[in-house]
Amino acid sequence: MSTIQLLNYAGIFVFAATGALAASRRQLDIIAFMFLAAATGVGGGTLRDLILDVPVFWVEDPRSLLVCAAAALLIYFTANLVESRYRLLLWLDAMGLAAYSVMGSAKGLALGFDSTIAIVTGILTATFGGILRDIIAGEPSVLLRREIYVTAAFAGSATYTLLFRLDAAPAFAALAAFAAAFVVRGGALYFGWTLPNYHRPGRNDEELKRDGVIRSD
Amino acid sequence: MSTIQLLNYAGIFVFAATGALAASRRQLDIIAFMFLAAATGVGGGTLRDLILDVPVFWVEDPRSLLVCAAAALLIYFTANLVESRYRLLLWLDAMGLAAYSVMGSAKGLALGFDSTIAIVTGILTATFGGILRDIIAGEPSVLLRREIYVTAAFAGSATYTLLFRLDAAPAFAALAAFAAAFVVRGGALYFGWTLPNYHRPGRNDEELKRDGVIRSD
Amino acid sequence: MSTIQLLNYAGIFVFAATGALAASRRQLDIIAFMFLAAATGVGGGTLRDLILDVPVFWVEDPRSLLVCAAAALLIYFTANLVESRYRLLLWLDAMGLAAYSVMGSAKGLALGFDSTIAIVTGILTATFGGILRDIIAGEPSVLLRREIYVTAAFAGSATYTLLFRLDAAPAFAALAAFAAAFVVRGGALYFGWTLPNYHRPGRNDEELKRDGVIRSD
Repeated sequence: MSTIQLLNYAGIFVFAATGALAASRRQLDIIAFMFLAAATGVGGGTLRDLILDVPVFWVEDPRSLLVCAAAALLIYFTANLVESRYRLLLWLDAMGLAAYSVMGSAKGLALGFDSTIAIVTGILTATFGGILRDIIAGEPSVLLRREIYVTAAFAGSATYTLLFRLDAAPAFAALAAFAAAFVVRGGALYFGWTLPNYHRPGRNDEELKRDGVIRSD
Repeated sequence: MSTIQLLNYAGIFVFAATGALAASRRQLDIIAFMFLAAATGVGGGTLRDLILDVPVFWVEDPRSLLVCAAAALLIYFTANLVESRYRLLLWLDAMGLAAYSVMGSAKGLALGFDSTIAIVTGILTATFGGILRDIIAGEPSVLLRREIYVTAAFAGSATYTLLFRLDAAPAFAALAAFAAAFVVRGGALYFGWTLPNYHRPGRNDEELKRDGVIRSD
Repeated sequence: MSTIQLLNYAGIFVFAATGALAASRRQLDIIAFMFLAAATGVGGGTLRDLILDVPVFWVEDPRSLLVCAAAALLIYFTANLVESRYRLLLWLDAMGLAAYSVMGSAKGLALGFDSTIAIVTGILTATFGGILRDIIAGEPSVLLRREIYVTAAFAGSATYTLLFRLDAAPAFAALAAFAAAFVVRGGALYFGWTLPNYHRPGRNDEELKRDGVIRSD
């Protein structure tokens, strides 16, 4: 199995595990664990394949779904051993984000699309599974957190695309890009890294209240 | 019209009615009723067709949209006669779930996909319309309810797929699978059937509060 | 550049700006601004192209993504000058809705689909970007507001489709349909126009509370 394929299954597994963790926080049953695991695990890649107009990967390779089911089972029986499941979810999500930012770009480039498209599909693939998980499970969206998120996916996609254009060995490009994305997102989680956030002092909270925005995460 | 086609329009109609009921709970206007009815009625089948890479069914057969509009009109003028519209929504959703778990699998199998894919597309088709309805209408997701939900869609899809592989008559397979799914979901609604739910005693609520999860349904 | 193409880029730009405004209300960073801008700007057209089974427009023409990035940058540096960013969001959303109801129908008709499909894809294209924005940004859905919304998209799509069938000049049909949609939605925003809303006196609020619906916008 190539490095790229390995990264693919690893990405599916950790993303699926975050879906199962979200299910555990909602105290759902094992079938719902598997459903949320699969939605998170293959959601981003499904959107990528629809947009690039190629057959959806898990329809061609149902093993991807077994990987999701395995992740769901593992979490179902072990999540009670974890101190903070949301913290674990965020770290696994970081690994999935990194793996998928590479996979998304790699598929776009392999199909001959230009660099802009490859980077955008990398970001989409990396973020959409998590967005779907948070919507279905009613979790606060990872995207709305203050620390860096989309930027990490951009780092992975851009690094892979650049190294690909420089004719780097695929395994090296994949690992370097994975590392770039994971370091950026991991640093954001561990050290609280942020880019300058938009801020209009003193007004935002009032305005949000006035307009009836209820979620305040 | 074959049993399968009849089940198809019946499924569209009842799912569309649940969308219209959600609109009535939000006190929207008739056009918004039709919009939510159509999103719920054809949403699951649309995702199925995109994933299986076949033409979207309602683009080929716009009558499906008329069925949604009819359901919206009926609910618009009669919902005030109903004691608990959310209860009605849940029961119609159960019928739609059962019908669509069959339709989703049947289309996958008819196109020659293997059993795993047929079962998964059955579950997707059966659940996605309801997920879409709840997201757009801001209802608590049916998927997060404690009683069995995804499992019922699995029961319908798996029963149909099994009977199809055993060369059962299509009409018989469709009705038996519909019954399997509806009995499971109906039992969950009526008797409160659940599978063992994941539970870590005493910790979940605190953790959810700490992490700022706001929806508590 | 034809009137239709101009309307296309204008629609992408204003929708992208509403995504960026939602990001500013959440105080996100510039990359997240661009992400939300792109999701809102091209989301509706992406769904349209997937459903009509044609290549996704921004994969063929990445300039659309640059338009989104430009809108994000503009809002990032100027949103603090705006008194009520949500009010601005609603008005730009009205312009995007009008432009996209035309674009959605125009593409359907140009591909030879019948009038029903063209009107429906017009409505979908016009509303889906905003739905996506509100879901990702955790804003109350524009669709659930009491004033007319989906009806405005219908006005634009139906007007364009009618004029197209009457062999009107494309530029005239596009501008007339844009005006129809914008006047309806603008009137709803300015004068509070509504269609008769479904109302069951005295019961809805209680029922919503009883069923645990939390969002009350």
